[in-house]
Amino acid sequence: MKTNRRLDHKPFLVPPGKRFRLKDHPPGYTGQFKNKGAAKEALIEDVTALAEAQQLLWASAEYSVIIIFQALDAAGKDGTIRHVMSGVNPQGVEVHSFKAPTEEERLRHFLWRPMKAMPARGRIAIFNRSYYEEVLVVRVHPELLEYQYVRPELRRKGYDRLWEERYESINRLERTLTQNGCCVIKFFLHVSRAEQKERFLERINNPEKHWKFSAADIRERAFWDDYQRAYEQMLQATSTSWAPWYVVPADHKWFTRAVVADIIASRIGRLKLRYPKPTPEQIEGLEAARQQLEAEK
Amino acid sequence: MKTNRRLDHKPFLVPPGKRFRLKDHPPGYTGQFKNKGAAKEALIEDVTALAEAQQLLWASAEYSVIIIFQALDAAGKDGTIRHVMSGVNPQGVEVHSFKAPTEEERLRHFLWRPMKAMPARGRIAIFNRSYYEEVLVVRVHPELLEYQYVRPELRRKGYDRLWEERYESINRLERTLTQNGCCVIKFFLHVSRAEQKERFLERINNPEKHWKFSAADIRERAFWDDYQRAYEQMLQATSTSWAPWYVVPADHKWFTRAVVADIIASRIGRLKLRYPKPTPEQIEGLEAARQQLEAEK
Repeated sequence: MKTNRRLDHKPFLVPPGKRFRLKDHPPGYTGQFKNKGAAKEALIEDVTALAEAQQLLWASAEYSVIIIFQALDAAGKDGTIRHVMSGVNPQGVEVHSFKAPTEEERLRHFLWRPMKAMPARGRIAIFNRSYYEEVLVVRVHPELLEYQYVRPELRRKGYDRLWEERYESINRLERTLTQNGCCVIKFFLHVSRAEQKERFLERINNPEKHWKFSAADIRERAFWDDYQRAYEQMLQATSTSWAPWYVVPADHKWFTRAVVADIIASRIGRLKLRYPKPTPEQIEGLEAARQQLEAEK
Repeated sequence: MKTNRRLDHKPFLVPPGKRFRLKDHPPGYTGQFKNKGAAKEALIEDVTALAEAQQLLWASAEYSVIIIFQALDAAGKDGTIRHVMSGVNPQGVEVHSFKAPTEEERLRHFLWRPMKAMPARGRIAIFNRSYYEEVLVVRVHPELLEYQYVRPELRRKGYDRLWEERYESINRLERTLTQNGCCVIKFFLHVSRAEQKERFLERINNPEKHWKFSAADIRERAFWDDYQRAYEQMLQATSTSWAPWYVVPADHKWFTRAVVADIIASRIGRLKLRYPKPTPEQIEGLEAARQQLEAEK
């Protein structure tokens, strides 16, 4: 498979180990495409490349892939997943939505949940939200920690140490994953406050979209600045050389989709997968099978 | 959504409670389409209809759907799943492959396995092979029963009673599912012995397809007549008014795909789903949210 890489991914990459500011990443950016039409063409090409890449991933059954989507409400996670994965064999893809944890999950370590959702070799798992919520929504609303196990000294000292430890735990988990044949691709879809407002109003005004809207969405909007800060700190602390974050501008859906598709196709392409080569015994078996079939009357 | 139903599904339906013969269903049948082009057009329309139907299924979160694919090797299960489901949001679909059961599964009742794989409301589960293997491959190779729990008197009397009981258990399970909001759609992709031979030779001759071929495929081909008999008996015993079987001719892939897509789109269409209607309180909440958003400076 040719490595599909028409886009420069650098503007989206959060550089590991460096100071990172969200304000250097404008949500309205569309720089690499002259217009929507060009982006759509690129998307179609990437969707095709991705479908091929996934066939090969499945056939070779060497690597697995986890694709993480994090974003504020209405940034376009669902639509991006639908459009980008549209060509891919559903047999090789599973989507996990990380909603509020169950009682069973809250009684365990915060990384138990994603462990249960790990994809088998050859498969792609998409995490629609993820364990990163534990350093995002929980950081913005630390009262949620009352329902979780926290070492007593961390409660006494304020939670700064807790967030640092969670970042470390996440980085260790992802290091272990990547060392063991799991490619981890992480996207933050970065929408502006103004665009979120437009999209909320659209949902309110369109009866077919009412089911997508909940009063909680508006409540969380009031914590906008807290979320931006929590994202900024998380992105800086957990963008690593083995599992870097991509910040994808999300004010233009067509741009978001084209960028995400291009990055995924390129990352899987870089795994240099090959169709499995048969062993000498297998070749003998194939030959015997051919003779047997051809000898049938 | 308009009920998409251009095809007459009757030729494919196994009529519940009647004598059924596979030989009345020629695998090469393409009767309803003049040519490949017409079938491809129908497929595209159905794939689009299906994508819409699934959006609605997901939004309304009332029903779930199980789609079962059974077939001999090389009948085109994988390709059909890939093509038919290509437009559907991967978020709402999960594919379960029923390969040889694990030790944990063998220690339990043969319907424990599918129970674990039940889709949540709003979702589609595709079973690539299924619990029907327990009356197919196991019937052709009854020595597999040595590893399963079987009541001693059934072992003494020969296994005829066992298959009857399994059919009954399956019918009861599916009755319970359909009574509880799960739509069960069952396909047998019916390929001819000659076409299977051609497809095996194609796999043997194409290095990119070697990974799809195993010596076991040829071994099972030797049991062709036993499989036809096991399928015939199973189809007759488990095609019910609540969960009928469709026998889809599988010698022409384009025909198989068009028929399967049409039946699925039509069956989901008949559920008469609607986008959820907001309650008066929700409408109030939407109005409050609108005012709050519009009042932002």
